[in-house]
Amino acid sequence: MSGFSRFTPLANALPSTVPFVGPEAIERQRGRKLRARIGANESGFGPAPSVLKAIREQAGETWMYSDPESFELREAIALHHGVSRENIAIGCGIDGLLGEIVRLVVEPGTPVVTSLGGYPTFNYHVNGYGGRLVTTPYANDREDLDGLLSAAKREDAPLVYLANPDNPMGSWWDADSVTAFARALPDGSLLILDEAYCETAPAGSTPPVDALIGQPNVLRMRTFSKAYGLAGARVGYAIGTLGNAQAFDKIRNHFGMARISTVAALAALEDQAYLRDVVGRIAAARERIAAIARQNGLSPLPSATNFVAIDCGGDGVRARGIVDGLMDHGVFIRMPGVAPLNRCIRVSAGPDADLDLFEAVLPKVLKAVK
Amino acid sequence: MSGFSRFTPLANALPSTVPFVGPEAIERQRGRKLRARIGANESGFGPAPSVLKAIREQAGETWMYSDPESFELREAIALHHGVSRENIAIGCGIDGLLGEIVRLVVEPGTPVVTSLGGYPTFNYHVNGYGGRLVTTPYANDREDLDGLLSAAKREDAPLVYLANPDNPMGSWWDADSVTAFARALPDGSLLILDEAYCETAPAGSTPPVDALIGQPNVLRMRTFSKAYGLAGARVGYAIGTLGNAQAFDKIRNHFGMARISTVAALAALEDQAYLRDVVGRIAAARERIAAIARQNGLSPLPSATNFVAIDCGGDGVRARGIVDGLMDHGVFIRMPGVAPLNRCIRVSAGPDADLDLFEAVLPKVLKAVK
Repeated sequence: MSGFSRFTPLANALPSTVPFVGPEAIERQRGRKLRARIGANESGFGPAPSVLKAIREQAGETWMYSDPESFELREAIALHHGVSRENIAIGCGIDGLLGEIVRLVVEPGTPVVTSLGGYPTFNYHVNGYGGRLVTTPYANDREDLDGLLSAAKREDAPLVYLANPDNPMGSWWDADSVTAFARALPDGSLLILDEAYCETAPAGSTPPVDALIGQPNVLRMRTFSKAYGLAGARVGYAIGTLGNAQAFDKIRNHFGMARISTVAALAALEDQAYLRDVVGRIAAARERIAAIARQNGLSPLPSATNFVAIDCGGDGVRARGIVDGLMDHGVFIRMPGVAPLNRCIRVSAGPDADLDLFEAVLPKVLKAVK
Repeated sequence: MSGFSRFTPLANALPSTVPFVGPEAIERQRGRKLRARIGANESGFGPAPSVLKAIREQAGETWMYSDPESFELREAIALHHGVSRENIAIGCGIDGLLGEIVRLVVEPGTPVVTSLGGYPTFNYHVNGYGGRLVTTPYANDREDLDGLLSAAKREDAPLVYLANPDNPMGSWWDADSVTAFARALPDGSLLILDEAYCETAPAGSTPPVDALIGQPNVLRMRTFSKAYGLAGARVGYAIGTLGNAQAFDKIRNHFGMARISTVAALAALEDQAYLRDVVGRIAAARERIAAIARQNGLSPLPSATNFVAIDCGGDGVRARGIVDGLMDHGVFIRMPGVAPLNRCIRVSAGPDADLDLFEAVLPKVLKAVK
């Protein structure tokens, strides 16, 4: 059965790609359950008990639409960061917010600067609006600030993407370098500073919120999906000038937030003690993943995130073999998509049981791929 | 603090409008809580107890992203309707799906046909992509099928919107008329058949799914927000040809669904006994709303939905006075936005306590507006 004959030329030209294949699809393809889910940088430590309590207590409210202004959540986030509620925009995860900001800035042919091998979902949205991706290679497994700045200027690009800390490599810049980069960009280049992993980053690597809050060409993005353990809730937020935060109101799906998700995010933000605790557990899990890698003759990269990229000492074919081999043993991980990053595999921090399995099967997999 | 200087011309031209002001915003403006929330066509009867049980039991899974393919939910919906999983696309409510289909079809200047006074959120999306709205007046408080058909042909419009049953009037067409309308549309006009309220409609008013499933210029939309009582979950779906259902995959936010929302929708679909029960309670509430209207000298319109439009025997100013007066007494209702529909107020079916309050205060409000 065919489709409608008059989709836009842009829509017709788009491939039916998916930025990521979900672990559930892998399970269906392979006909069996995964035993360790440490591939999507979710937090197997889960959200705080206080969050689960709030979800269960307020489940009965789900007959009501969520407040389209997300007033309380924006107020709480603003208070947390010492800014105004008007500086905050809420969306369905950073993914949702990325789609919206791309829509606000990108027309067919618009140059957009990002790193070669950077976050695929950002690229997906840029392609979806017909933008032209201009990519700068990583330098020493970090996004290359000088290269990104040069590309932005050369292309007169209205949109520039930087993740700090970075996904998929786990690398990071210090706050001063990021701030200097943001300030050096032309006024006509909007920086999307994706800070999905900032909660697990070392002190001094995330610019203070007030350092960039007055800059109309900077939007910072945060999420409850990583350290807060709420990937399934789909709550992210953007921090920016009043004009930028309000720009989302022109196009967003005002009644698009799930009510229980908002309840969960609010409860998660209020439980900073749990966040501190889980950040410690994530740090310990990173150490353990690195130790397992070293025991097997592989080279873990330093990480500021809730995952560890592990250099497997070969090319993308070798890394793919390891990913697939682990999958055969029920261990779900992922790997970067382009060279030279794809010499690595990427393992998410998770509970001991997951890392036990990873530790147990990795030697067998490495033996098999040799 | 100003915004970024290079948003697209389309973005800059868009107003910062909101299709609907939420009841929470009204509470904040007025400084007090609403006592009866019967204005947004939510279901105050709530979701099934089995749904709440599922939410509470599976709350702990919210650390995981939802399956981006929503495989299980699509499978269940397909089984429910006797179609294939490939005929189903899932989105963040019908609102989210409307935004996506508009994006797939509408470019700046594209003519889009709908009814004058029809669903504002559809218009919001059309404006958001620069489309040109072509509106056909209601005829006898129903969307005018002949008028819509003429407009679609005259304008060679690639997109046509029809809600059956209708919001905001609660009116409906019989299934044969809708089917004939869909079949009479040119191949190059895609009909969005919004059936958000079909569960509460009389038998014979909703075309069987197989009557239109093979037609590449028809997309039907359903939701868990109304009779299923899950407005806050944000789960809707589109039923169409394989090509049309898959078209959403090119642009949607693949990891955009909240995991618990999907759990809730699946449980709701499985509990058809509860749905039957609640549809009966909605019918009874409609009768009661109509009776209250008549007792007060007003004229309730027949309704196939979970609300009743009440003709207040005047113009929009009079109706607005009644809406505001009810709000002063803590009763949240809404009204249509344009003449002549705005001679009416719109009251959602709800539990007895809400209708008790409506019944108690309506006479006072009517006295005051005279």
